[in-house]
Amino acid sequence: MWGLDELIRRALDEDIGPGDLTTAATVPPSTRAAGVFLCKEAGVVAGLFVCERVFACLDAAVRFAPRVPEGAPVRPGDVLAEVHGPARPLLTGERVALNFLRHLSGVATRTARMVSLVRGYPVRIVDTRKTTPGLRALEKWAVRLGGGHNHRFGLYDGVLIKDNHIRAAGGITAAVRAARAAVPHTVKIEVEVEDLAGVEEALAAGADAILLDNMPPAAMREAVELVAGRALVEASGGITEANVAEVAAAGVDIISVGALTHSVKALDISMELEPAAPPGGPGGRRHG
Amino acid sequence: MWGLDELIRRALDEDIGPGDLTTAATVPPSTRAAGVFLCKEAGVVAGLFVCERVFACLDAAVRFAPRVPEGAPVRPGDVLAEVHGPARPLLTGERVALNFLRHLSGVATRTARMVSLVRGYPVRIVDTRKTTPGLRALEKWAVRLGGGHNHRFGLYDGVLIKDNHIRAAGGITAAVRAARAAVPHTVKIEVEVEDLAGVEEALAAGADAILLDNMPPAAMREAVELVAGRALVEASGGITEANVAEVAAAGVDIISVGALTHSVKALDISMELEPAAPPGGPGGRRHG
Amino acid sequence: MWGLDELIRRALDEDIGPGDLTTAATVPPSTRAAGVFLCKEAGVVAGLFVCERVFACLDAAVRFAPRVPEGAPVRPGDVLAEVHGPARPLLTGERVALNFLRHLSGVATRTARMVSLVRGYPVRIVDTRKTTPGLRALEKWAVRLGGGHNHRFGLYDGVLIKDNHIRAAGGITAAVRAARAAVPHTVKIEVEVEDLAGVEEALAAGADAILLDNMPPAAMREAVELVAGRALVEASGGITEANVAEVAAAGVDIISVGALTHSVKALDISMELEPAAPPGGPGGRRHG
Amino acid sequence: MWGLDELIRRALDEDIGPGDLTTAATVPPSTRAAGVFLCKEAGVVAGLFVCERVFACLDAAVRFAPRVPEGAPVRPGDVLAEVHGPARPLLTGERVALNFLRHLSGVATRTARMVSLVRGYPVRIVDTRKTTPGLRALEKWAVRLGGGHNHRFGLYDGVLIKDNHIRAAGGITAAVRAARAAVPHTVKIEVEVEDLAGVEEALAAGADAILLDNMPPAAMREAVELVAGRALVEASGGITEANVAEVAAAGVDIISVGALTHSVKALDISMELEPAAPPGGPGGRRHG
Amino acid sequence: MWGLDELIRRALDEDIGPGDLTTAATVPPSTRAAGVFLCKEAGVVAGLFVCERVFACLDAAVRFAPRVPEGAPVRPGDVLAEVHGPARPLLTGERVALNFLRHLSGVATRTARMVSLVRGYPVRIVDTRKTTPGLRALEKWAVRLGGGHNHRFGLYDGVLIKDNHIRAAGGITAAVRAARAAVPHTVKIEVEVEDLAGVEEALAAGADAILLDNMPPAAMREAVELVAGRALVEASGGITEANVAEVAAAGVDIISVGALTHSVKALDISMELEPAAPPGGPGGRRHG
Amino acid sequence: MWGLDELIRRALDEDIGPGDLTTAATVPPSTRAAGVFLCKEAGVVAGLFVCERVFACLDAAVRFAPRVPEGAPVRPGDVLAEVHGPARPLLTGERVALNFLRHLSGVATRTARMVSLVRGYPVRIVDTRKTTPGLRALEKWAVRLGGGHNHRFGLYDGVLIKDNHIRAAGGITAAVRAARAAVPHTVKIEVEVEDLAGVEEALAAGADAILLDNMPPAAMREAVELVAGRALVEASGGITEANVAEVAAAGVDIISVGALTHSVKALDISMELEPAAPPGGPGGRRHG
Repeated sequence: MWGLDELIRRALDEDIGPGDLTTAATVPPSTRAAGVFLCKEAGVVAGLFVCERVFACLDAAVRFAPRVPEGAPVRPGDVLAEVHGPARPLLTGERVALNFLRHLSGVATRTARMVSLVRGYPVRIVDTRKTTPGLRALEKWAVRLGGGHNHRFGLYDGVLIKDNHIRAAGGITAAVRAARAAVPHTVKIEVEVEDLAGVEEALAAGADAILLDNMPPAAMREAVELVAGRALVEASGGITEANVAEVAAAGVDIISVGALTHSVKALDISMELEPAAPPGGPGGRRHG
Repeated sequence: MWGLDELIRRALDEDIGPGDLTTAATVPPSTRAAGVFLCKEAGVVAGLFVCERVFACLDAAVRFAPRVPEGAPVRPGDVLAEVHGPARPLLTGERVALNFLRHLSGVATRTARMVSLVRGYPVRIVDTRKTTPGLRALEKWAVRLGGGHNHRFGLYDGVLIKDNHIRAAGGITAAVRAARAAVPHTVKIEVEVEDLAGVEEALAAGADAILLDNMPPAAMREAVELVAGRALVEASGGITEANVAEVAAAGVDIISVGALTHSVKALDISMELEPAAPPGGPGGRRHG
Repeated sequence: MWGLDELIRRALDEDIGPGDLTTAATVPPSTRAAGVFLCKEAGVVAGLFVCERVFACLDAAVRFAPRVPEGAPVRPGDVLAEVHGPARPLLTGERVALNFLRHLSGVATRTARMVSLVRGYPVRIVDTRKTTPGLRALEKWAVRLGGGHNHRFGLYDGVLIKDNHIRAAGGITAAVRAARAAVPHTVKIEVEVEDLAGVEEALAAGADAILLDNMPPAAMREAVELVAGRALVEASGGITEANVAEVAAAGVDIISVGALTHSVKALDISMELEPAAPPGGPGGRRHG
Repeated sequence: MWGLDELIRRALDEDIGPGDLTTAATVPPSTRAAGVFLCKEAGVVAGLFVCERVFACLDAAVRFAPRVPEGAPVRPGDVLAEVHGPARPLLTGERVALNFLRHLSGVATRTARMVSLVRGYPVRIVDTRKTTPGLRALEKWAVRLGGGHNHRFGLYDGVLIKDNHIRAAGGITAAVRAARAAVPHTVKIEVEVEDLAGVEEALAAGADAILLDNMPPAAMREAVELVAGRALVEASGGITEANVAEVAAAGVDIISVGALTHSVKALDISMELEPAAPPGGPGGRRHG
Repeated sequence: MWGLDELIRRALDEDIGPGDLTTAATVPPSTRAAGVFLCKEAGVVAGLFVCERVFACLDAAVRFAPRVPEGAPVRPGDVLAEVHGPARPLLTGERVALNFLRHLSGVATRTARMVSLVRGYPVRIVDTRKTTPGLRALEKWAVRLGGGHNHRFGLYDGVLIKDNHIRAAGGITAAVRAARAAVPHTVKIEVEVEDLAGVEEALAAGADAILLDNMPPAAMREAVELVAGRALVEASGGITEANVAEVAAAGVDIISVGALTHSVKALDISMELEPAAPPGGPGGRRHG
Repeated sequence: MWGLDELIRRALDEDIGPGDLTTAATVPPSTRAAGVFLCKEAGVVAGLFVCERVFACLDAAVRFAPRVPEGAPVRPGDVLAEVHGPARPLLTGERVALNFLRHLSGVATRTARMVSLVRGYPVRIVDTRKTTPGLRALEKWAVRLGGGHNHRFGLYDGVLIKDNHIRAAGGITAAVRAARAAVPHTVKIEVEVEDLAGVEEALAAGADAILLDNMPPAAMREAVELVAGRALVEASGGITEANVAEVAAAGVDIISVGALTHSVKALDISMELEPAAPPGGPGGRRHG
């Protein structure tokens, strides 16, 4: 994944700096250990492969074996992965691995809950660009694991014309025309509107998708009828677990939810370690 | 701040990639704009200086003027900062700036709430190493703005001996002795214990601080009495807004709360932009 | 532009390494010079802003003033830019600046020639992913300056289903469906086909665009009629200045030409320098 | 090779960004494939080892086996290399691998043609500093594969005194003396001259090599006679396939040709892939 | 170790640049060699693991086998390590490997000599922040190998209040109080003083450690008595091999010596290479 | 200078990490200070421009004004530079600035002493590749400031054929011929020999320079006579202040001395700071 190793190294750097004082002082290099990543709260797991690479960055001798696939629903007491190897990198990498795993699982869990609330409706729950700086690719992957879909990844792979763009371009029609002329033919053009007049103008201008910004469900329903399949319709703004089903019922194709990634509650997961005998018995320590 | 520019560039890279398609297509280069960062929810603001550098990275011509100091309590409707300059970088940088500001303000806000709950007690609310990968320095700074204090920054600037270290070293006494012999004399040694026997052994071994892990308040109180000022006492594990005052009342010196940084609810802040006349009037556009 | 400074620094590093031996040995630090970037061959200029930043990276005291806008048609003898400042950075940076400028102007020039050959047809000349490693963003920008358009920037901002993808997915229909389900709704789906049967299947599967791979013009014409506006039609493969007009006449919407970027003939441009008196006259050298 | 991995990663980053949408959507992770790099045009191959590392960067499970050595003359239909492994990285890395291979083979091919035109003369065809930004080391290596030699790599490993240096230093003699005094004794000093007077002065000043800039062949011949082996003689400027033999016949030691690297025509090479059964038969997909 | 690979790559880059001209020209790729790292001067060895990684960075086929452990006392004629593998990377990497090894062994050797001079006293010889830019972590590790201890690693993991801080804060008491309030509870506070009055004020303010700056031994002795175990006492300034024992005799806990790292005499070590037969005999060269 | 900013940032990073605890806690942001860099030992100064950039990296408001030129001979009590500005960056950057300045001045000082010992002889004192990892460009520049010259910068800008190369190539003649054929014509070829037979063979093979390795002065003298100006002659190995004049008297052109850079004694320089009133008087602190 794009820049993942660099991201992991930065996370390790900010935690370890010039060295893990405690482990270096108290754990002999030859000590080995084994343990599990233990789930302590129901949710959807995401990020085990990141944990594996965290430990791989520290010491190639650590073995990290997932026990559930990415995206699996998990319950308290579930073992998510097993680890064993030299005790030092296991202790030194534990926190960084968990920081990734708990955060990403938090994203997947919230997404799954939101998706479950609109089950039965032909609608996508999608993320936004309201992501944690540096973690966008991982968070958007966690959204997919939770059953959601991705909106554009950034400003470069989709066109979303908002009010400021419209004003600067001199109206919806001008803005859509300018975008169509300038951007690659592989990219769709979406327009953000606030009312039905906006929907009509966007449609007439040839928008591929229309984002209804903070409209009440009744107005959304009208907009969906007006569009009548000629463009994709996205609902956005103020959508929570309390109202998402009502929005879905309005018939939109896509519901975008910023909180999937901007307000994440970490899933409670811990690493439980047991010391293990060094390989080759008592003599194992001599190579320390 | 350590690596901040690199962090900002990474965040801009992941959002902008090879270019902001929409803005490039719809906003002429000569268009100027002005606007405000508007608070929409009560809290504590943190991260305005990051916003300033986000825009500075994009275009030195953008002016970003904070209207409240970092760490200020803010209310819905408050203007946090004013911006003006070329419209393109304002639109392109908006989301990254807000992603930092909303997240960090979320950290500061939660910290401030936790701190307010123990007001009157001689206790520090401190953060943990359960931070968002890549954002530790910023998040720990936001904790301070919210009135909290920092625990060690990472594995390199403090010793915290946990159960796995104790087992590997052969007991609390051996672990503390090993740490004292190995680490710089500038660093304190803290030991995590689970019961009063642990407290006694840690004290006897000469620990500078003792972390009470998941102890009930009554046991904490006993521990505090046992220590009697000979070491700092930290409470950790399962501490929430519901029980933090009770923990403080037990007399500990320090209460660490992982959720300050691992489960952040973004503070609701938006950027509201108004187009501005180009400098020099109608002719301004000709250099676009 | 995305990573431009890093690219320029790499180019300067590979040319200058630990130092410009000749200039350091023969040109006193106080010597000043002025000169011009002189066009020696007809074409379209692209990359003046890169030259400006090359010199800025070396010495903030160099002044680089473009005399024609980017994308301007130029003729032998035209002055493209004027420079003046300390002689050392002018001499040290000359080659790197020219290497960028001549290459990018070569791309723009070839594109402009190709575009001029289809003038009158409602067709876009577009680039491909056959770009010079490290220079894609610059080369695609030069294509636009030459009057061409961009295809997708990379594998991440557009879907182009080729024969290997079709085989792996189990047919065109399955491939389009899989793509539609997986990718953001902001991205279009294009399918590469080799015959009319492929066109029909792609259309039926709901492709947004169809790439005709190496088809003869007659077959292209049939394909265009078959599609009848229900998708964009792109011609690709073996298109040269000799046959591009015939392809355009077939009615396709888009013609992609790899040679715009993979076989570039540098435009002949040189830097002509004149020594200048140091500022403040004869005394200027004493601060060297 | 110096910074090659970083260069490859940059090239992969600019093509893949956050992910290969098409391949991820249409090709199951367990699909395997095998194929060949097929030559479609006569030339000299250069860059197979770069292709190998491109795929290695993507997935260590890809096997890339060259079938001809670097620098081999190749003909249409020749298999240059075989690949096999997981289909995803093969498809994702194809374009970047080919972009390197086709460009570098283009450099080697043009060099070989130029070298063949002076066969029999005791002369070196050498490159210049007119290289593609970021690719200098690779391009200069491709020149050697094509039978050419390298001029200095950059400004740091050779002294070439041009007119601006001469003017700044106060004449050829002063410039050569200044250079001799300043630079390591391991580096030769070459002087660019425009006429026989310049040749004489450079010789008298003790130049190790003399560059004849844009001189007609007759003048070159006179210069060679004048030098009479006391320095190396290099011809430069306006040398093409049409006149290179005449220049060689003038007796110079070295002929430098900028077009070897500044105006490269990519050699036509493609990757032809066949799907392969997954290892272990039908069950192979279950690990996807 | 923190950033070691990057440091090694920088060192290799600055020595090798675009290539080892001599080795490439004179040593066939198939030539193999074996040799030893030979000690030519008595001392303490440090840095063999760095040598191993230097060669690993160049070619995974090189085998580097230490023959003494890090920190071992060594004598002229001792073999420190054996190497064998392809001759090219051995020759190309020799100097960089030795530059690290000789420098770090120089640090360890000087430290060991200083430590031996205070043997019998309950005192630590510690380093300072007067390290070679870029090499701090390695140099501080070499100090430990020589039997010394580390002072704080940098400005971030310990508090050392000097005269300028005291003046700015308004006195020792105010400075200590400000530091105690601001820094993590895991970090000790040390105060630099110049006389006994300073010692008293620092003690009263609650300093954890007191640095006696350039005090004569008699004054140090008084300071130690005054402190009476209530804080650690460090002597610093002007301490040499000539006076270190006298300082230790004054009863201080810690003696810091800048010269351990700021004025290093490289330990004399060389690499002695013997050519070896290629593997598989005369045929070995055919794969070159 | 090549990579200097990166080097400085690395040095600052390793010292400051996530922050200067002491300064942040004790020095208000508005406090200003002024001071001097004071020389405490006779020598040659080198590195003031590095100090200037160290502070510039920390805070653009710091003013650093050199009071002597680079390369000046200095005596105890000399003011080398004046600084003033915000106190925080002055205190935070002091140590890194001094670490560079003292080390580089140490190199220049030792070089100057060595150069002074051969004054009157037509000989160059040159450095070697035995430099501190990461600091080569700076150290070689300091050698020049001390009156020395540089040998090649690395393996890429000069050919030095040693015994291992000779053996691998099959003799001196073969090695020189191979090098001549392979390397750019801008680079000289030097051969290391151990006796007069080697000198004769190297001369016959056309070496441009001959390095006499560890020869006694009498043998050097014979070698110089034998060469008789047909090549440069360099003496190397075991040259100290005690014997350098004798070596120079042998008539060699060049004397290389590894200790110039591998065993540096830092020059004693300190920064003496005085607090200054904040600008604008008592009110200055309110913006802190």
